[in-house]
Amino acid sequence: MAKEKKLVEAITSMDVDFAQWYTDVVKKAELVDYTSVKGCMVIKPAGYAIWENIQKELDRRFKETGVENVYLPMFIPESLLQKEKDHVEGFAPEVAWVTHGGLEPLQERLCVRPTSETLFCDFYANEVQSYRDLPKVYNQWCSVVRWEKTTRPFLRSREFLWQEGHTAHATGEEAEKRTIQMLNVYADFCEEVLAIPVIKGQKTDKEKFAGAEATYTIESLMHDGKALQSGTSHNFGDGFAKAFGIQFTDKDNTLKYVHQTSWGMTTRMIGAIIMVHGDDSGLVLPPRIAPTQVMVIPIAMHKEGVLEKAQEIRDRLAKDFRVKLDATDKSPGWKFSEQEMKGIPVRIEMGPKDIEAGQAVMVRRDTREKLVVSLEELEEKLAQVLDAMQKDMLERARAHRDAHTYDAHTYEEFVDMINNKPGFVRGMWCGDRACEDKIKEETGATSRCRPFGQDRIGDTCVCCGRPAKSLIYWGKAY
Amino acid sequence: MAKEKKLVEAITSMDVDFAQWYTDVVKKAELVDYTSVKGCMVIKPAGYAIWENIQKELDRRFKETGVENVYLPMFIPESLLQKEKDHVEGFAPEVAWVTHGGLEPLQERLCVRPTSETLFCDFYANEVQSYRDLPKVYNQWCSVVRWEKTTRPFLRSREFLWQEGHTAHATGEEAEKRTIQMLNVYADFCEEVLAIPVIKGQKTDKEKFAGAEATYTIESLMHDGKALQSGTSHNFGDGFAKAFGIQFTDKDNTLKYVHQTSWGMTTRMIGAIIMVHGDDSGLVLPPRIAPTQVMVIPIAMHKEGVLEKAQEIRDRLAKDFRVKLDATDKSPGWKFSEQEMKGIPVRIEMGPKDIEAGQAVMVRRDTREKLVVSLEELEEKLAQVLDAMQKDMLERARAHRDAHTYDAHTYEEFVDMINNKPGFVRGMWCGDRACEDKIKEETGATSRCRPFGQDRIGDTCVCCGRPAKSLIYWGKAY
Repeated sequence: MAKEKKLVEAITSMDVDFAQWYTDVVKKAELVDYTSVKGCMVIKPAGYAIWENIQKELDRRFKETGVENVYLPMFIPESLLQKEKDHVEGFAPEVAWVTHGGLEPLQERLCVRPTSETLFCDFYANEVQSYRDLPKVYNQWCSVVRWEKTTRPFLRSREFLWQEGHTAHATGEEAEKRTIQMLNVYADFCEEVLAIPVIKGQKTDKEKFAGAEATYTIESLMHDGKALQSGTSHNFGDGFAKAFGIQFTDKDNTLKYVHQTSWGMTTRMIGAIIMVHGDDSGLVLPPRIAPTQVMVIPIAMHKEGVLEKAQEIRDRLAKDFRVKLDATDKSPGWKFSEQEMKGIPVRIEMGPKDIEAGQAVMVRRDTREKLVVSLEELEEKLAQVLDAMQKDMLERARAHRDAHTYDAHTYEEFVDMINNKPGFVRGMWCGDRACEDKIKEETGATSRCRPFGQDRIGDTCVCCGRPAKSLIYWGKAY
Repeated sequence: MAKEKKLVEAITSMDVDFAQWYTDVVKKAELVDYTSVKGCMVIKPAGYAIWENIQKELDRRFKETGVENVYLPMFIPESLLQKEKDHVEGFAPEVAWVTHGGLEPLQERLCVRPTSETLFCDFYANEVQSYRDLPKVYNQWCSVVRWEKTTRPFLRSREFLWQEGHTAHATGEEAEKRTIQMLNVYADFCEEVLAIPVIKGQKTDKEKFAGAEATYTIESLMHDGKALQSGTSHNFGDGFAKAFGIQFTDKDNTLKYVHQTSWGMTTRMIGAIIMVHGDDSGLVLPPRIAPTQVMVIPIAMHKEGVLEKAQEIRDRLAKDFRVKLDATDKSPGWKFSEQEMKGIPVRIEMGPKDIEAGQAVMVRRDTREKLVVSLEELEEKLAQVLDAMQKDMLERARAHRDAHTYDAHTYEEFVDMINNKPGFVRGMWCGDRACEDKIKEETGATSRCRPFGQDRIGDTCVCCGRPAKSLIYWGKAY
């Protein structure tokens, strides 16, 4: 028992030190490991399998909207990166530079892509001649590099995995429609698959993407009350098209610039899953994204027929579920702790008495609820439990988010809430960058977004008291 | 008609200039495009969709053998690359070096991975402590960079996509078994899915991987008689383990070094598909790898009911096949040319008379064979045609390879064959590096492999006439 307790005890409680709890979980659940390459990590099988499921789900949703996948080079010549002024200013300070190829210095240095707008523009400038060539709705799955000073697994690392969609359209209306369409794909994916509720909205000019006309975002709230930008979708208008000369002959025989968008989601969503759903026993994975949904754990495995029956159940369930059997020589208690640490949604315990009675015990990871189930009804009950868990996890996360969303009407109130009540603070804003800067400087909070479809909660700016233009979600963020 | 002819005429005949034919096909079939980044290419949707199918098929086969996917950093610190002597000598001359991160020079320069043995070793050195931690059977899908001087789409580019499997085992026997197992996975995949027959064998010391104890390979023959190394599997013994200190406590409580393997397959297989199966009308894709297996092309689309019927057929076939409908305003002849250029295995033509008669015309891409099929039997006949085509393509490629495999017994015969008969030349070899060097220098041919399970064809070395040790497949290679 001493050994078994150690596994769980080794995790810091999330209420004591959330950051340490996070670090403990990513290590103990075997999601990542550190490497000799500073700021870069290994994504281990348990972590990568979550990413594979994210890819599969997102890719299917993308393709349903007409997206095609491509692959562009990882290197960007310096002159190409510099073509769009705002963009290079935003990214140049944090890119990695390749200066030598083989034994020779390069004539022009290349950066490792921090994002690929410039490469897609260069590509589209060649590909797009006529309105018949439009729209281009391309996406790539790849890794990108940003030379961050401080890093944390999944949340901020020098190299991370993502998808980046880049589209070109004949009109601004079509580009705007695609921008919002992809934001909705992200939002639906987060809620339906990851059980993470999101606030959809628009970024302020200060927070928008370097080179974008408009940036839309989905923002989610972690268990500690900090916000996480979870996916962004940008409308570039024709700014990049003008910088890169991407023109087409329209139906009316005139030469026009294309309108472009880009949108991305990254491995930081694995961090979001951990921080929204995890508890003091470790990871809790929503059933729809869990690489293993059910762990069958035989009790008194040495007794005749137990292992065979467990194998039979595993094989039966494998037809409809992602199931594993833990037939190692560890004790059942140790196996329970491991299954909990790894966030596997359901475990099925079965010992000699259960088998004799034609039943098994089903335990939900999130609520620890135990259910004695007849073996005949196993599939049916398991499907119900997984469905209920998926739904409950979303509702619990939504309730937590709503209970940690506050309305501030004065600056005093605002500062008090930001400092003492972890969560989103809703407050009106005059639209002036100075107020945004002041809030960030004095409280560390940033504007997360102007939310879609929410009513105003007042008429004056929460910072300066002048007439307010819009409602803003503010928060401290990862 | 002038326009339609142009599409086909623009391809160089493969008999006139095979290299130019290849370049024409990759462009006209819209597989790749060139970029501003010298030596790097864009893989366009039609090309990337082939890679996605390769990934899906290989990944499934890997996982059936217990492989788990991971992701390691793209950067390797110089000191790490240098740990294994042979390995660094093999790769250092062709890596790209990152020297600056953001605005600052790095303390130690990093190379962009040309392959990840060193990173996996560093990782395993941390992960592996006990025999319980073994085996590690990991794989990653990623891109790698090798600073090649001359490049060709898919066959040789500075950045390419691949998978690299890296395993660690308790014993040399187990490592050798895994090495051969993965070679067989590659061979089966090539034959069953890509319809490319391969010769399995072992590389000579001269041609083996930098740092490997033994390199196994599958070699295929292109239509022009040149060889293509199509997949390799390496047994490292404990060489890397000793350089990186990867030790474990075995069951007998003694400290031992692990035994390692690695194995990879790349996007150059798309080049192999083109060069094995293509013809003067363009690409010919084996049905099992084709992103689109069937193109429905309505004839006289303006006539009442034609488009509707074509859509109905498309929707019906979509249940069992990867099908598209070409409902653009191009002429049928133009659509036929495009479908042929893109290598789509089957087209279904249907005009008003066909529809009236309750039938359609099915045309096989490889043989151009036409089949009038009753609409009721469409699924059944289509499945038969696709199956037959897959099988015939493999047999045709095998017959071509066998007809272009020659036996040489003297050096004179050897040189004559290598220079005048494009293909594999089988010849006995004394085992001496000097003969291998001489052959390469004087003929440009390299030893492709010592084939598995083939009888000797003589007793003396085809180069020096001394007693021969083994049979070798020789050839000029991509």
